[in-house]
Amino acid sequence: MEGRQEGEVGPVILTVTLNTALDITYRVPSLRAGASHRVSDVLERPGGKGVNVARVLAALGHEVTVTGFSGGPTGRVLRDRLTEVPRVTDALVPVSGATRRTVTLVDDRTGATTHLNEPGPHIAHAEWSAFQEVYEDLLPSASAVALCGSLPPGVPVGAYANLVRTARAARVPVLLDTSGAALRRGVAGRPDLLKPNTEELAELTGSHEPLRATQDARRRGAGTVVASLGADGLLAVTPEGRWRATPPAPLTGNPTGAGDAAVAGLLSALVEHRPWPERLIRATALSAATVLSPTAGDFDRETYERLLTTVTVTVVATAA
Amino acid sequence: MEGRQEGEVGPVILTVTLNTALDITYRVPSLRAGASHRVSDVLERPGGKGVNVARVLAALGHEVTVTGFSGGPTGRVLRDRLTEVPRVTDALVPVSGATRRTVTLVDDRTGATTHLNEPGPHIAHAEWSAFQEVYEDLLPSASAVALCGSLPPGVPVGAYANLVRTARAARVPVLLDTSGAALRRGVAGRPDLLKPNTEELAELTGSHEPLRATQDARRRGAGTVVASLGADGLLAVTPEGRWRATPPAPLTGNPTGAGDAAVAGLLSALVEHRPWPERLIRATALSAATVLSPTAGDFDRETYERLLTTVTVTVVATAA
Repeated sequence: MEGRQEGEVGPVILTVTLNTALDITYRVPSLRAGASHRVSDVLERPGGKGVNVARVLAALGHEVTVTGFSGGPTGRVLRDRLTEVPRVTDALVPVSGATRRTVTLVDDRTGATTHLNEPGPHIAHAEWSAFQEVYEDLLPSASAVALCGSLPPGVPVGAYANLVRTARAARVPVLLDTSGAALRRGVAGRPDLLKPNTEELAELTGSHEPLRATQDARRRGAGTVVASLGADGLLAVTPEGRWRATPPAPLTGNPTGAGDAAVAGLLSALVEHRPWPERLIRATALSAATVLSPTAGDFDRETYERLLTTVTVTVVATAA
Repeated sequence: MEGRQEGEVGPVILTVTLNTALDITYRVPSLRAGASHRVSDVLERPGGKGVNVARVLAALGHEVTVTGFSGGPTGRVLRDRLTEVPRVTDALVPVSGATRRTVTLVDDRTGATTHLNEPGPHIAHAEWSAFQEVYEDLLPSASAVALCGSLPPGVPVGAYANLVRTARAARVPVLLDTSGAALRRGVAGRPDLLKPNTEELAELTGSHEPLRATQDARRRGAGTVVASLGADGLLAVTPEGRWRATPPAPLTGNPTGAGDAAVAGLLSALVEHRPWPERLIRATALSAATVLSPTAGDFDRETYERLLTTVTVTVVATAA
């Protein structure tokens, strides 16, 4: 693995999305509550955080397997669309409920985005058990696993803690990116890598001071915590040191998917055994290139490659 | 037919919906542009004006055949749901494009509804021809036909004029309920019954004075014009006289589907050969019971039956 170049085929990265979604984006000339709008443009694509991570990983040249749940007519559309993405293998577990939709309204005038998120389908006990078996079967061929997003109804709140432990038992590096109770319980499973944003970090630790909160999150069980601080870039507290990665200029754009792009950057550099500063540069550049992209959740490759040379990484002093 | 009671099985009423839709309704606690919303309640049902008319007719006890176009995953859901509606027969013509979705956002705080309407799928020339054949085959067993709603891309703007002429040649009473160019061209086909709302009437005739505009619309080719004047009820100009039907009190509620309920009322009373005042009472009562219903597009039967005895019909003087 040492010295592997980005773009080479390597072992498969596994991403888990228990609450997949069919993401629908509508462009409207100007959104007004109480009015009727003709939608000028409809975009429909597979979604949920782990699916978004997989798409970015695949764009970087990695083979990715996507698992989690899908069901109903929306689940069928999601799986159909997934077959069109090169280097992504569908290992989603069928469920009787229908995959949720998310609707994003993009106001052409202001650029503001309004999000409507359906609740996920109820997962039956047998469906959750079936998933756990699939997950265990997939782990041995995985170079890393990312557990991403919310838990649909019916999945136990301690689900991520179990999935983290299973990955660790199989000696597969495991990243957790979730929020609320799922995060609080999941971190106790001791994931190798936690990637909270400012809000999730504050909710987990009670602290709004990024470095203190990041250190606290690590004490709660995470091997490494990489906090995404929005426009301020990333803050990493690892066993090998502490770093801050900052994009060259303040970013304006659509932050949708920026966190998922950061996860993909961290994972891809992790499986390529790059040192921490390089991992953080890649994650920050991908995240920023996603914010700057005209299409929500996609990254602009040219911007990404330019940012790789302009993101700065600084060592964070021990006595902060 | 004379003296047929509402609720008896009679000949089939045909409704045509060239631009069917899968109607999705989201309840949100409070809609704010630029924010993320968890949808508390998701309702999904077959839609498009002629489909809505069919549902009301079926609830009144009539056998209805629904034709028009459907396609893609959304079309499959629409057809699946249609099979659950008693007394409705699906004669939709499959197309390669996907049936559009409409999304209605109901603000739980204010009750305001915000509508997002996808454009319809493109209809190929061969698909339009296939529809015309199906339509001609269905007409001989129809007691009346309603042509409802917008034309999807690819269907010629003169489509309704042709469909009206085909119905008239088959001696089947034909009602037209559409807007814009489709209405302007369609009325020239000489439909037996035109049901515009205030806005459509003004757009067609250039006049905002309801009686003058209704008379003008009749001169353009319609046998009878029944204009729906919102809270003011209905205004009918027929070969047998002119009437105004008014609900007993100002209505507050959700007007979604009120026009389609009026069409169903007019059609059901037409095929039962009721006199004009009774047709107008039924249409007004159904329309008002739809506005007052807690579920968008449904009518409350108890309210409907009460309104049947309280809607007033007055003769409109010739020299207005």
